[in-house]
Amino acid sequence: MAEILSSLRSLMAAHSPPLDALVVPSEDYHQSEYVSARDTRREFVSGFTGSAGLALITKDEARLWTDGRYFLQAEQQLSNEWTLMRMAEDPAVDVWMAENLPEEAAVGVNPWCISADTAHRWESAFAKKKQKLVQTATDIVDEIWKNRPADEANPVVVQPLEFTGCSVAEKLHDLRGKLKASKARGIIITTLDQVAWLFNIRGSDVPYCPVVHAFALVTLNSAFLYVDRRKVSSEVNSYMEENAIEVRDYTAVSSDVALLASDQLDSTSTINRKPKAETVRNGTTEAEGAGVDLVWVDSSSCSYALYSKLNLEKVFQQQSPLALAKALKNPVELDGLRKSHIRDGAAVVQYLVWLDKQMQDIYGASGYFLEGETDKKKKDLRTTKLTEVTVSDKLESFRASKEHFRGLSFPTISSVGPNAAIIHYGPQPETCAEVDPDKIYLFDSGAQVLKGHIGLGNARFPNGTNGHTLDILARIPLWKSGLDYRHGTGHGIGSFLFVHEGPHLISFRPSARNVPIQASMTVTDEPGYYEDGNFGIRLENVLVVNEADTKFNFGDKGYLEFEHITWAPYQRKLIDVSLLVPEEIEWLNTYHSRCSEILAPYLNENERSWLSKATEPVTVA
Amino acid sequence: MAEILSSLRSLMAAHSPPLDALVVPSEDYHQSEYVSARDTRREFVSGFTGSAGLALITKDEARLWTDGRYFLQAEQQLSNEWTLMRMAEDPAVDVWMAENLPEEAAVGVNPWCISADTAHRWESAFAKKKQKLVQTATDIVDEIWKNRPADEANPVVVQPLEFTGCSVAEKLHDLRGKLKASKARGIIITTLDQVAWLFNIRGSDVPYCPVVHAFALVTLNSAFLYVDRRKVSSEVNSYMEENAIEVRDYTAVSSDVALLASDQLDSTSTINRKPKAETVRNGTTEAEGAGVDLVWVDSSSCSYALYSKLNLEKVFQQQSPLALAKALKNPVELDGLRKSHIRDGAAVVQYLVWLDKQMQDIYGASGYFLEGETDKKKKDLRTTKLTEVTVSDKLESFRASKEHFRGLSFPTISSVGPNAAIIHYGPQPETCAEVDPDKIYLFDSGAQVLKGHIGLGNARFPNGTNGHTLDILARIPLWKSGLDYRHGTGHGIGSFLFVHEGPHLISFRPSARNVPIQASMTVTDEPGYYEDGNFGIRLENVLVVNEADTKFNFGDKGYLEFEHITWAPYQRKLIDVSLLVPEEIEWLNTYHSRCSEILAPYLNENERSWLSKATEPVTVA
Repeated sequence: MAEILSSLRSLMAAHSPPLDALVVPSEDYHQSEYVSARDTRREFVSGFTGSAGLALITKDEARLWTDGRYFLQAEQQLSNEWTLMRMAEDPAVDVWMAENLPEEAAVGVNPWCISADTAHRWESAFAKKKQKLVQTATDIVDEIWKNRPADEANPVVVQPLEFTGCSVAEKLHDLRGKLKASKARGIIITTLDQVAWLFNIRGSDVPYCPVVHAFALVTLNSAFLYVDRRKVSSEVNSYMEENAIEVRDYTAVSSDVALLASDQLDSTSTINRKPKAETVRNGTTEAEGAGVDLVWVDSSSCSYALYSKLNLEKVFQQQSPLALAKALKNPVELDGLRKSHIRDGAAVVQYLVWLDKQMQDIYGASGYFLEGETDKKKKDLRTTKLTEVTVSDKLESFRASKEHFRGLSFPTISSVGPNAAIIHYGPQPETCAEVDPDKIYLFDSGAQVLKGHIGLGNARFPNGTNGHTLDILARIPLWKSGLDYRHGTGHGIGSFLFVHEGPHLISFRPSARNVPIQASMTVTDEPGYYEDGNFGIRLENVLVVNEADTKFNFGDKGYLEFEHITWAPYQRKLIDVSLLVPEEIEWLNTYHSRCSEILAPYLNENERSWLSKATEPVTVA
Repeated sequence: MAEILSSLRSLMAAHSPPLDALVVPSEDYHQSEYVSARDTRREFVSGFTGSAGLALITKDEARLWTDGRYFLQAEQQLSNEWTLMRMAEDPAVDVWMAENLPEEAAVGVNPWCISADTAHRWESAFAKKKQKLVQTATDIVDEIWKNRPADEANPVVVQPLEFTGCSVAEKLHDLRGKLKASKARGIIITTLDQVAWLFNIRGSDVPYCPVVHAFALVTLNSAFLYVDRRKVSSEVNSYMEENAIEVRDYTAVSSDVALLASDQLDSTSTINRKPKAETVRNGTTEAEGAGVDLVWVDSSSCSYALYSKLNLEKVFQQQSPLALAKALKNPVELDGLRKSHIRDGAAVVQYLVWLDKQMQDIYGASGYFLEGETDKKKKDLRTTKLTEVTVSDKLESFRASKEHFRGLSFPTISSVGPNAAIIHYGPQPETCAEVDPDKIYLFDSGAQVLKGHIGLGNARFPNGTNGHTLDILARIPLWKSGLDYRHGTGHGIGSFLFVHEGPHLISFRPSARNVPIQASMTVTDEPGYYEDGNFGIRLENVLVVNEADTKFNFGDKGYLEFEHITWAPYQRKLIDVSLLVPEEIEWLNTYHSRCSEILAPYLNENERSWLSKATEPVTVA
């Protein structure tokens, strides 16, 4: 670690201008939350492996900012050279830099790895002391990273209509309609899931994220995909041609954005091949072209590097229209999500049945259904050892046995006892803990958290309600006892795309960009409870937002409710039923009864009878 | 009405420049919510008497914007010439003007009657079509208002320390500390309750609001009160002198703000009479003066007229520090509030006992405790007639009999049946309804609303939580059935000041200015339910925010809870107990038992036994 920091500091001093500080964000060129191995620059310099965080190296300090999900993990992983900065508790990075770096300090950053919004916010903060944000020409971290993983060359695959429910032609048509309505003649698409969703393609460039490293530009009558050509087979090439999508080199996006900005981007395959006379440059016809001369860009996800190439007078700065379009799942996608969650629920139950037996056979535990008898001496029958990693692998093998399995959507968080208090804990084979019949493990449940989980999941609310407004429903039972959790309550999920998908969010933080919850969105319901050094609990279901059939319809807004599509039992011996009110008990019993009914066809007799028992109705004591 | 509009339109046409539209806001020169009779300009031109609303008169249209509390009332009161614009449903006034008024339209307004923020927002909206906001030199409405009420000349009275708990000297000292910390050498105070609170004075210029029409300017070593001198007795003058507050003419504020802006405001009574040599203009000493050259102004409440006199480069634009200081009640104020609510609770119970007897004697009603027997023929013993106004007067007389009674804090909302669906209904003696034993009247209760009322009132939450976040707790039981109410859930109340007091609010609308709920604040808990044309329900208690003694203290934030200080029984026969969960029943029974205990000493034997019965514990059926 010390060596990496001193190498970086040498390069910072040698840079022109010399850098007083270097920012190393965790994002890649697409502002992704999860990145490929060769893009884990922040992890390489700091040793911290969490998905979110930002490293700042000055001449004599090294600081790492991360959020509440990762406080414990960062404390464990950061070496002495590093100071942990807790987001929402310590000053934000721009505030800290503005206050602590000298007058006229030069702060270097790879402009591909931060968004235009972030860069602009920092520049405002820097103005007071005439500090400067310097775009480095190359990435300084890459220069010292000797064993940096090589470029991926994983194939692009076409996602068939039976799963997407909507053709590329339809999606492009809708998109162009929105462009015209906003007087935009083109749009820059930089986020990986939006490129994948728009062109109905998938890939495997980023672990757990079935996407390709690619950019897209779409104008009123042309479309471009910027991708490493080695990844595009001749079949995929034909598919692109059929859809009038021109494939160009990944690196060409930079110069093409500059051309788009000056309305000189030429396509060899425009959709409407009009006679030259009707064409005003770049194929925009005169009729369509009247006043339509803006370029749509989402400055919260577009890199500072690309954004800097635009003509600011002609920028239409707004959230990408693909964000909401992608979040509103079509019936084919919803059907696919429901079915995949049933297959997944069956895998989870098979795993629980297996784990229950292992715990009794190997560790002499009292089992899933019986209260633990801590006085009773445990059997010592250990011939095999179960660890956080081996049980998690077993779960993956159950999942992999199901139809259409294409991999996990995020690294399994498998954690025993104190490790479960590390919200996004990721066990490693060499260091992970052994399971312990006396300690809480995966899929655990407690009534306060369960009350919040039901409070949100069973809510009804009018159209126009923001996720931020709903967040308190999951926290209020914990707040009664002065308890809380340091993460949001819910996020959208993609349709064979990202595990975290906007533009909506159920969070305690209000966000200017937050979009109201709408019918056909997906969202998770995942309150948690964590005792540092002891244990952690998180209950997570995926929900689909539906219109509610309420008795009244005050204000003619229409009301919404949630459909749970995750099916797995809540462990009853961990529920203090006396804390539940009748409505919550009714919800739990209904959910359990449907869970048993829905999963039964996918289970063998032994598993079915285990599930029947696990889902027996709860009654007030 | 038609005559008023045509007179206004003549003056608009004759104005230089000619006005395409005239805005008539409901606010006075202090942006007050409630105004004196001579300031009810918007009511005079439109006929609509609600406390909030804005009139817009164009060459051929007249439109009135108001919020959800007043939709029904405005529909009833507006004549045919007027179009009602429903706030939050129809376009906002600036959006409407920008879209519907012609290019380069001139929109006139009295600049004393709108805030600088509002004016700036409108000017932004107007930019697209080069429309202009024109400050009229005089108020055009006043010019045609023949019988406009005369100037008030009600005396200023000093509020003694036994009620305020904090001297003017202490308040000025705290204020000046905040000014220095923000590098401000002076502050403009324009809201009536802030002037009254700072100088510990009260008045009676505005019905229901015990304040004086006055402005204040405070610098680091001088203080000025701008008020009609006829209102200031020689005793009050001495009090002002003792506190080094210079009394100046109300109208002098305009030129004095200009002097303050250029640092030329001279005082004849500075606190620290330093030798001339040490003084840098206006008495700011050199030591203090380093870099302290801003003028603090709250542009959300400062009029456009006064704000326009400032040097914008030297403006410190932020919420007035008095807003939060006033909202955080000191122990003397809290004690006063608790005691006055006990006296008020006793008056309410005496009134209920009286009303219960009247309803049985005069109308043959079944009484407060018995379920109504609608089949049974009503007695017809009417010798006296009870109306919304006479019963409300009776309640006021019970209140007036109590110690320290100084008048109501808002017009009593006394409403029978359908009138109760008009959220801020104000009955008039000539037109009001008679009470009816078959219809819901005042103080009514229903379990869905009661659930929301308890859900909020019984909540605990961490420091830093915004009122907007808590709002859903009162609505979620109604949302289950697709129901809602068109008003906020809670607001601060003043200490013998305004019934509505910021800077906090419990509202469904997020607000950039919203301040977190903090210990020692007051706030109401008042969800409602209204069926247009049928009946209305609202449950309102005043709460004090206290630190909560929670078992844990996650995140070391400290947790808060509410103390109910309003004491009056909920009518049990209107509560469907089967809808309540055990925690809610326990809350209700505890509240009722304390209510009976606390009010008993103030009641006679008959009233006490009535209250005992009204507060008997509820059990699950």
